[in-house]
Amino acid sequence: MPLQLEVLATAGAARRGRLVTPHGVIETPAFMPVGTLGAVKGVHPRELAAAGASVMLSNLYHLALRPGIDTIERLGGLHAFTGWPGPILTDSGGFQVFSLDSLRKVDDGGVTFRSHLDGSALRFTPEGVVSFQERMGVDIAMVLDECPPWPIDEARAADSWRRTLEWARRARAAWTGRSGGGLFGIVQGSAFRPLRERAALELAELGFDGHAIGGVSVGEPDADRRAVVEWTAPLLPADRPRYLMGVGFPKDILHAVAHGVDLFDCVLPARNARHGTLFTRDGVLKIKNAKHKEDPRPVDAECGCPSCAPGPHQVSRAFLHHLTRSGELTAAVLATLHNLRFYLDFMAEIRQAITLGTFTDLADRFATRSAGGYPPGEPGFGLPVTSNPLEPRSS
Amino acid sequence: MPLQLEVLATAGAARRGRLVTPHGVIETPAFMPVGTLGAVKGVHPRELAAAGASVMLSNLYHLALRPGIDTIERLGGLHAFTGWPGPILTDSGGFQVFSLDSLRKVDDGGVTFRSHLDGSALRFTPEGVVSFQERMGVDIAMVLDECPPWPIDEARAADSWRRTLEWARRARAAWTGRSGGGLFGIVQGSAFRPLRERAALELAELGFDGHAIGGVSVGEPDADRRAVVEWTAPLLPADRPRYLMGVGFPKDILHAVAHGVDLFDCVLPARNARHGTLFTRDGVLKIKNAKHKEDPRPVDAECGCPSCAPGPHQVSRAFLHHLTRSGELTAAVLATLHNLRFYLDFMAEIRQAITLGTFTDLADRFATRSAGGYPPGEPGFGLPVTSNPLEPRSS
Repeated sequence: MPLQLEVLATAGAARRGRLVTPHGVIETPAFMPVGTLGAVKGVHPRELAAAGASVMLSNLYHLALRPGIDTIERLGGLHAFTGWPGPILTDSGGFQVFSLDSLRKVDDGGVTFRSHLDGSALRFTPEGVVSFQERMGVDIAMVLDECPPWPIDEARAADSWRRTLEWARRARAAWTGRSGGGLFGIVQGSAFRPLRERAALELAELGFDGHAIGGVSVGEPDADRRAVVEWTAPLLPADRPRYLMGVGFPKDILHAVAHGVDLFDCVLPARNARHGTLFTRDGVLKIKNAKHKEDPRPVDAECGCPSCAPGPHQVSRAFLHHLTRSGELTAAVLATLHNLRFYLDFMAEIRQAITLGTFTDLADRFATRSAGGYPPGEPGFGLPVTSNPLEPRSS
Repeated sequence: MPLQLEVLATAGAARRGRLVTPHGVIETPAFMPVGTLGAVKGVHPRELAAAGASVMLSNLYHLALRPGIDTIERLGGLHAFTGWPGPILTDSGGFQVFSLDSLRKVDDGGVTFRSHLDGSALRFTPEGVVSFQERMGVDIAMVLDECPPWPIDEARAADSWRRTLEWARRARAAWTGRSGGGLFGIVQGSAFRPLRERAALELAELGFDGHAIGGVSVGEPDADRRAVVEWTAPLLPADRPRYLMGVGFPKDILHAVAHGVDLFDCVLPARNARHGTLFTRDGVLKIKNAKHKEDPRPVDAECGCPSCAPGPHQVSRAFLHHLTRSGELTAAVLATLHNLRFYLDFMAEIRQAITLGTFTDLADRFATRSAGGYPPGEPGFGLPVTSNPLEPRSS
């Protein structure tokens, strides 16, 4: 197998592992910062590494449109092109089937996108998507899937899954492994338990190098997202990495880790940063609020990002408030570096807690410390206080 | 004197010095990156230091509007507020008399601005401006001056200078020195030689800690700007720093250094970066041009910025082209760090050349290497090839 997952410790279903890829080791559970076009918005790849990232996610659809796969291949592949020498996972374009639904047409053979840039047609087939990713030399390639909208009825979800499964077979057959990386299958099935369970089992038969839970973060309630994780994760092969796509808030990550998920990605830390929402160990902080105007404290005294770290260049909440209110580019950059560091530190804490046998304590501590309301309207950072992340809920 | 200038070496009128300020030493000739609102756009103060900056320029007018001097004072001054622990120079608002001419009214007592943010009135007087800067604790404060527009007739330029001189006297009298920094006077007089010469001599009588040449970079032809420097700089006291405000291109800096100027500031490297214009040792590079699409080379192989420095995170012209074409925030950040580093390295080269006695060679080398056209339409990076920077031109 091209990707080796070594499980170093467990806590219930949660596991702390090392995923060996052609471009380095991913310590799991891991968060993959999103560099849609090859770089996290506002962040130099050197700074991304300094923040503690071990793997970057990039997007095949966007890269195929611009600069194009041919260009990336001629420049030596995606690692050489982006200046990110570590592991890279590319999304297949399946999420764009959902997010760009007015610009695409799905048939049994694949997806035809109309470029959001110039209207030109771009054909994605299961085989083509595999080939694109192999030519870019990515460490983890994703199969083309159909990410259905929310809500959808069970019959349509089942039809959609049949097509995605067929695409998965074709992708698996087309995969040559010549780039040295691995290919992941994607479980769909909306929030229908029988469908998700069948999907997980069917996919597991195909011999993928890892498995993803897709079709979440598409507008579904938290409870449905969690149910999908609880139904699906245990049925995915335990010797291979499990990846929950596009999720999410720290509390969702904590929940999914407790159910055996190893990999995560989300635009949330970077996007929220650009809107002035900063993550801290005590909950979120809206830096534009007037109460921060003269607050000399760093955003989070326990954070090691360039803005929070003690030393001559530490910056205050007051300064970030000022820059954000002024609409300065600097505000977006500093906030992004902060939120990324927060997420990456959070994953490091999770890994350590699994190793030390204190994972339950960690979940409790997050729920308690951030009880000021995170995300807004929810009781805390961690899980609802009535739930135990180590006990899968009944459904 | 609160500011000590030690001249370590000279080459004709050019000098290599050390300017000791309350917050550290400025190695001169120095370029001061512009952090109008307290930070260079897109750059963390730690990165600014890493790029080699020893002093930052900030803007009193903008800071007085937002967040306000009271706030900055309560937060411990401008250094604590911005996370920039090194020397800071603040512009007085005099340039905004020029650049915001529809929003201000000048009388003999001072300037009344109408805030560009909310229309509220803000009164700047010579004494008030000194007090603002002392309260912020800056290392180098500038007097309030009237920066006249271009072109202007000699009589109006002379009237304007009389007012600016009177303001300079009042500022000098108001200056307490309690912040430990120094106060600079500003020579005006448009491009009229008798006026500039008289202004320099009159100002030199007032005992300022340094002297600036203002009223340039307001739309005048290159030749006029150079003439102003050549007339004025030699008349300013040699034992104190000389500062050419708002200038400019590397060739202009080289010219002014040759005439004894020590300090420079300009938004050019950062603003041009945001528009995809990158400085290199071989001239400027418009990164959006199609010819860079598949160019695997760094922007400048001799540059030490995060993007150009050899190593695993080096990024290519092709990648910067891609990010710039895509309108990514990352493009602005990477390009700004590059251009700042270019300017700061350029100043370091100038300092070394003066010390080693090779300043003339440096000027020649720049003129030759960048002869591909920099800035557009001009013969090169350095001076016009018919001129010798060490020989003041006749006028």
